[in-house]
Amino acid sequence: MTGVRIDLNADLGEGFGQWRLTEDDALLTVVTSANVACGFHAGDASTMRRVCAAAVAGGVAIGAQVSYRDLAGFGRREMDYAPGELADEVLYQLAALDGLARVAGGRVRYLKPHGALYHRCGRDERQAGAVAAAVRAYDHGLAVLGAPGSALLRLAGEAGLRAVPEAFADRAYTAAGTLVPRTEAGAVLTGADRVIAQAVRLVTEGAVDAVTGERVEVRAESLCLHGDTPGAVDLARRVRAALGAAGVEVAPFVAA
Amino acid sequence: MTGVRIDLNADLGEGFGQWRLTEDDALLTVVTSANVACGFHAGDASTMRRVCAAAVAGGVAIGAQVSYRDLAGFGRREMDYAPGELADEVLYQLAALDGLARVAGGRVRYLKPHGALYHRCGRDERQAGAVAAAVRAYDHGLAVLGAPGSALLRLAGEAGLRAVPEAFADRAYTAAGTLVPRTEAGAVLTGADRVIAQAVRLVTEGAVDAVTGERVEVRAESLCLHGDTPGAVDLARRVRAALGAAGVEVAPFVAA
Amino acid sequence: MTGVRIDLNADLGEGFGQWRLTEDDALLTVVTSANVACGFHAGDASTMRRVCAAAVAGGVAIGAQVSYRDLAGFGRREMDYAPGELADEVLYQLAALDGLARVAGGRVRYLKPHGALYHRCGRDERQAGAVAAAVRAYDHGLAVLGAPGSALLRLAGEAGLRAVPEAFADRAYTAAGTLVPRTEAGAVLTGADRVIAQAVRLVTEGAVDAVTGERVEVRAESLCLHGDTPGAVDLARRVRAALGAAGVEVAPFVAA
Amino acid sequence: MTGVRIDLNADLGEGFGQWRLTEDDALLTVVTSANVACGFHAGDASTMRRVCAAAVAGGVAIGAQVSYRDLAGFGRREMDYAPGELADEVLYQLAALDGLARVAGGRVRYLKPHGALYHRCGRDERQAGAVAAAVRAYDHGLAVLGAPGSALLRLAGEAGLRAVPEAFADRAYTAAGTLVPRTEAGAVLTGADRVIAQAVRLVTEGAVDAVTGERVEVRAESLCLHGDTPGAVDLARRVRAALGAAGVEVAPFVAA
Repeated sequence: MTGVRIDLNADLGEGFGQWRLTEDDALLTVVTSANVACGFHAGDASTMRRVCAAAVAGGVAIGAQVSYRDLAGFGRREMDYAPGELADEVLYQLAALDGLARVAGGRVRYLKPHGALYHRCGRDERQAGAVAAAVRAYDHGLAVLGAPGSALLRLAGEAGLRAVPEAFADRAYTAAGTLVPRTEAGAVLTGADRVIAQAVRLVTEGAVDAVTGERVEVRAESLCLHGDTPGAVDLARRVRAALGAAGVEVAPFVAA
Repeated sequence: MTGVRIDLNADLGEGFGQWRLTEDDALLTVVTSANVACGFHAGDASTMRRVCAAAVAGGVAIGAQVSYRDLAGFGRREMDYAPGELADEVLYQLAALDGLARVAGGRVRYLKPHGALYHRCGRDERQAGAVAAAVRAYDHGLAVLGAPGSALLRLAGEAGLRAVPEAFADRAYTAAGTLVPRTEAGAVLTGADRVIAQAVRLVTEGAVDAVTGERVEVRAESLCLHGDTPGAVDLARRVRAALGAAGVEVAPFVAA
Repeated sequence: MTGVRIDLNADLGEGFGQWRLTEDDALLTVVTSANVACGFHAGDASTMRRVCAAAVAGGVAIGAQVSYRDLAGFGRREMDYAPGELADEVLYQLAALDGLARVAGGRVRYLKPHGALYHRCGRDERQAGAVAAAVRAYDHGLAVLGAPGSALLRLAGEAGLRAVPEAFADRAYTAAGTLVPRTEAGAVLTGADRVIAQAVRLVTEGAVDAVTGERVEVRAESLCLHGDTPGAVDLARRVRAALGAAGVEVAPFVAA
Repeated sequence: MTGVRIDLNADLGEGFGQWRLTEDDALLTVVTSANVACGFHAGDASTMRRVCAAAVAGGVAIGAQVSYRDLAGFGRREMDYAPGELADEVLYQLAALDGLARVAGGRVRYLKPHGALYHRCGRDERQAGAVAAAVRAYDHGLAVLGAPGSALLRLAGEAGLRAVPEAFADRAYTAAGTLVPRTEAGAVLTGADRVIAQAVRLVTEGAVDAVTGERVEVRAESLCLHGDTPGAVDLARRVRAALGAAGVEVAPFVAA
């Protein structure tokens, strides 16, 4: 298993003002890439700055977790943006976070869309193209983190950006290698052992067992972990430990 | 009058979504510095990008017109921010605009607070210090545009930033060299001739007649013009023409 | 032409804070029903109260122009709301406006969805049903104003609410009696004479000529007029005058 | 101790969208009056409706916890509102909650300002008068809950509204009977026993020991309990039990 390497990413800074959601400090000791909310679905300026400072201190790569402008819906409702407006709002969020990251001694290294925008960018070429164009216009050295096979990763690659596919330790996969939708039973794996086993297998074999039993290949450079449920941080720690025990090197996919 | 030089600044991009307020394109043919709204009192991302592109095309310097977070009140209501929160929100706005400016081929060159924040920063050292600290942390090469004698300009200077005082062609001055508050009669000069005469005198003599009749010195490197009232753009054009006729060079106070 | 009667409705109060869009005072002298924005796509509390007071003074019926929560997009972007959330936000807007209307001496008499919600409620039974359920829960005496043949009007009727179909004086119709989409050429009628003629024909004959030439029946109890473009108020006045000259009684479809 | 009676109030529904703050269901089994957030500092429509339904089911009186429009600052930053704008925004919030309460089978019975508005209304007659005028215009049968000696309670009384003073079980008092500001040491009582003892004494004796040792009278018809800190609900339960053990009847100050 020499040479096997993986990045661990999680959503961070998803509070707003008085409200908190993610256990930012604890997660920053586990993950190697931080998807920092940029203010449109969550994330106020002070939280963004604080998370960036902690990420820099911990050697964690900073990514812009951009979203539709939808605080009330936490960015989980698909919206029909005109591509130009979407590109401009992505730029706004990306630049705002990059400024706070630079003041904290770091830089934004990648972008990952949040929630409904993430899903929409899987299949909608106009929105995915707008996101890729915004990243390209801002800094062609940035990576884009997203779903394998998504329109976003394909268009990001075509725009000359590094496209980084991710997998999920705690989500069930179809035989086609896509996620079982959350609306279906069994979409989310329960039981820490199953999650840990899938994480290790994803990284060391590049494959999982689909819900229908078949072995399916899933190529990923990063594993997405969740930090917004009870026990999530503890589970993330155990995933990381299991990967280490399996000889996997856990490191950011870009220099932090 | 050889060598006399002045900058003309105006607030731009003060629409939001469907709404418009300022005649951006017309004003950009008159002023040399554009105070671009950054989204907190006005200014959506697409408007910001469009104004930046037009400013770059016209050789107009781009400034960040930062504000309290108050769309409903247009940033005109004083708010008791904690200094740290204010600094972080100023950074967020400044960085967002700078990103859109860079994509448009330019850069943010200075910052000017908007509305209630402008006034509060005249006297409140905690808020003024927070604004100065944010600018300093982002880029010590940026200038700060504000009121002569304000806490903001003093603290910006102490932070090593260039502090640029401005004057108003259309506002009445007290014998102390401060603006007559808008709540008092006669605060705003009426009649294009009076405004034009005060503009020329401010620049060529560094002085105006106070409402009480005394001559009072007002040292400014920029004149603030308004673009949100009927006839405002036409008046701005006449002010610029009169300055030219008086031998004054109209140019940005920083390289655009 | 004895006994022919029509309501004229228009969107009002579509400013927000410092911004204005609609010529509220002028339109209130022309229309008989006012679709008042409720704060989610436009409409601050002071504007709502002011428009309600003027509507009461002018005998104009007050309607709640409810929307998705989307100030930046002016409610023109379709959003995937969960039905329960949509119903609750419709109730919130409806009740807020009703409170301001009551303080002004009136009451909300009907509801009309705005923008993308209006269009979505034409075909999406879950969202249309949520809107109808919210109105029903608030006050079963309220009417719902919408597009003929829409899911909303059908479900409102099934819920026991009065369903009021509207037509457009300035929009082209297909042979099926639906509006030509705005994305197609010729969707909006140009020329005051054509608009006025279509208005009169819609009311007196219950029909229009489709873009493809056929005569098509359009049954409406209200005509929607627009007030957000130059000359719109003048055109609205001419439409009303032409209806009067044709013997049509212009009056609210509900008691104001 | 026959006949002694007190209301217990707490802030509820202070989440927004995905975020939660208060343990609404648990608190509703303890308090007799629920100060429900109305959307301006916290409180989305679905949360408001859900809390109202639970309050109705539990016989808890519903109050409108109105605020400045400041989600990012949780309504804790003083703002310079024009009185007319403040009155209109209070009406908007009050009416929105009342609509959701009515759909849930109840009614809003009182109003209590939140955070910075609460404090400002203690001393600022213009803002306090605007709040009282809004309540009076909406329904003169509503009560206003606030601080003893505040401008708000005085002006509410002068407007013919019932003015209900509250006290705090967990806050230290000055010899003047006012709260020790949170910025000072010892402002918040620590230790459940001290809090419980002060609660019982406030209700049974109408007095507390000031921080400087003197006995000071504090007349209150309601005790404010907090539900946003760990252990808060448990402490609230113990306060209620201790009041019961002391022979105090715990009941809403208005019919729910």
